Amino acid sequence: MSDTRRGRTRSEAVRRAVLEATRDELAAHGYDKLSIDRIAAAAGAGKQTVYRWYPSKSALVAECVLDGYGFPATTPVPNTGAVRRDLRDWLEGFADHLAEPQSAALIRASTAAAAESDDVARRFYDHVTAASEDALTARLRDAAPTARPASATAAAEALVGAMLYRLLVRQPATPEFLDSLVDTVLSGIQGTNGTDSAGTQARDLTPDC
Amino acid sequence: MSDTRRGRTRSEAVRRAVLEATRDELAAHGYDKLSIDRIAAAAGAGKQTVYRWYPSKSALVAECVLDGYGFPATTPVPNTGAVRRDLRDWLEGFADHLAEPQSAALIRASTAAAAESDDVARRFYDHVTAASEDALTARLRDAAPTARPASATAAAEALVGAMLYRLLVRQPATPEFLDSLVDTVLSGIQGTNGTDSAGTQARDLTPDC
Repeated sequence: MSDTRRGRTRSEAVRRAVLEATRDELAAHGYDKLSIDRIAAAAGAGKQTVYRWYPSKSALVAECVLDGYGFPATTPVPNTGAVRRDLRDWLEGFADHLAEPQSAALIRASTAAAAESDDVARRFYDHVTAASEDALTARLRDAAPTARPASATAAAEALVGAMLYRLLVRQPATPEFLDSLVDTVLSGIQGTNGTDSAGTQARDLTPDC
Repeated sequence: MSDTRRGRTRSEAVRRAVLEATRDELAAHGYDKLSIDRIAAAAGAGKQTVYRWYPSKSALVAECVLDGYGFPATTPVPNTGAVRRDLRDWLEGFADHLAEPQSAALIRASTAAAAESDDVARRFYDHVTAASEDALTARLRDAAPTARPASATAAAEALVGAMLYRLLVRQPATPEFLDSLVDTVLSGIQGTNGTDSAGTQARDLTPDC
């Protein structure tokens, strides 16, 4: 093994040790009290190395999530045949996840990292979010086969976005909220169809009042 | 003036200078390259003081936004009488805002700060977000007077959430997306009504397929 190769292997081992230490530190102390100094010490890594690799706490936690440490980044959308129930179950799984302090902290840290960094945002989108969005969009198209593709996309983003919003404003996603959200979005996509006005605004869906 | 009073006045003057310097630093260098050292120097404040007040870049930028430095935190929802057009215009204003690099950076920093800190999240919700959400909910109720209040809330959060999601995944909110979003959500809230199934799940809105 060449020196360069050995250096790379050593560096990768340290990186893994740092990510494992981050996962343990998160479990023990939570995100707010997460200490990069303690993580570096636990991983046997130099503090400066950790800071050079991960300039912020959120970047470090994002890497953990992207590398599969900590929690499954996506949950598949069920497909039992009943679209409303499938979407409702998926949203409830998401809500249960958000109700656990550790998962909520991880998702909040990931959100913060994506908000702060174009690079993290792109990696999250490519490796995590796009697959969930595509799966949701596909289930919504089952519910409304004649809807335009853009409507299914908007509906999927409305579902995920509303959940994300609840997380950010620290409001619980109650069962009543989940029912209203899934009913509104499903009814919405079933109400729009391939001939609707979007883009041309020829039809105003709302009464003038 | 007592010494304590004088100290408090001096401290408040420094705080304002720090926030003004942050606004200028953001305009000159953007969020990613924002330097707390440069801000402290420009404000004539001790670096340690700035770090003590604002433990992270996002906390500092959030304070700027909450204190009205930089950009108007909320835009009123127009009320011309035509609900679809009003909502579409409001979303377009939001999209235009997100298309400006400086505004997008401020909103992303605010999102990161809210994601990271319960305290910042609560202050944003109380002072910024709740008013927008209430105004949107009220306009949606105009569009569907018989819809249950929970449906109007879910619809408002679907609109704001989908915009926030686009920002986080770095996808532009195109005119086609805005049309699909507003049509889907409006059609959705008009399709649900006071007698719908939410909560009881007595009616499945979707075909089983």
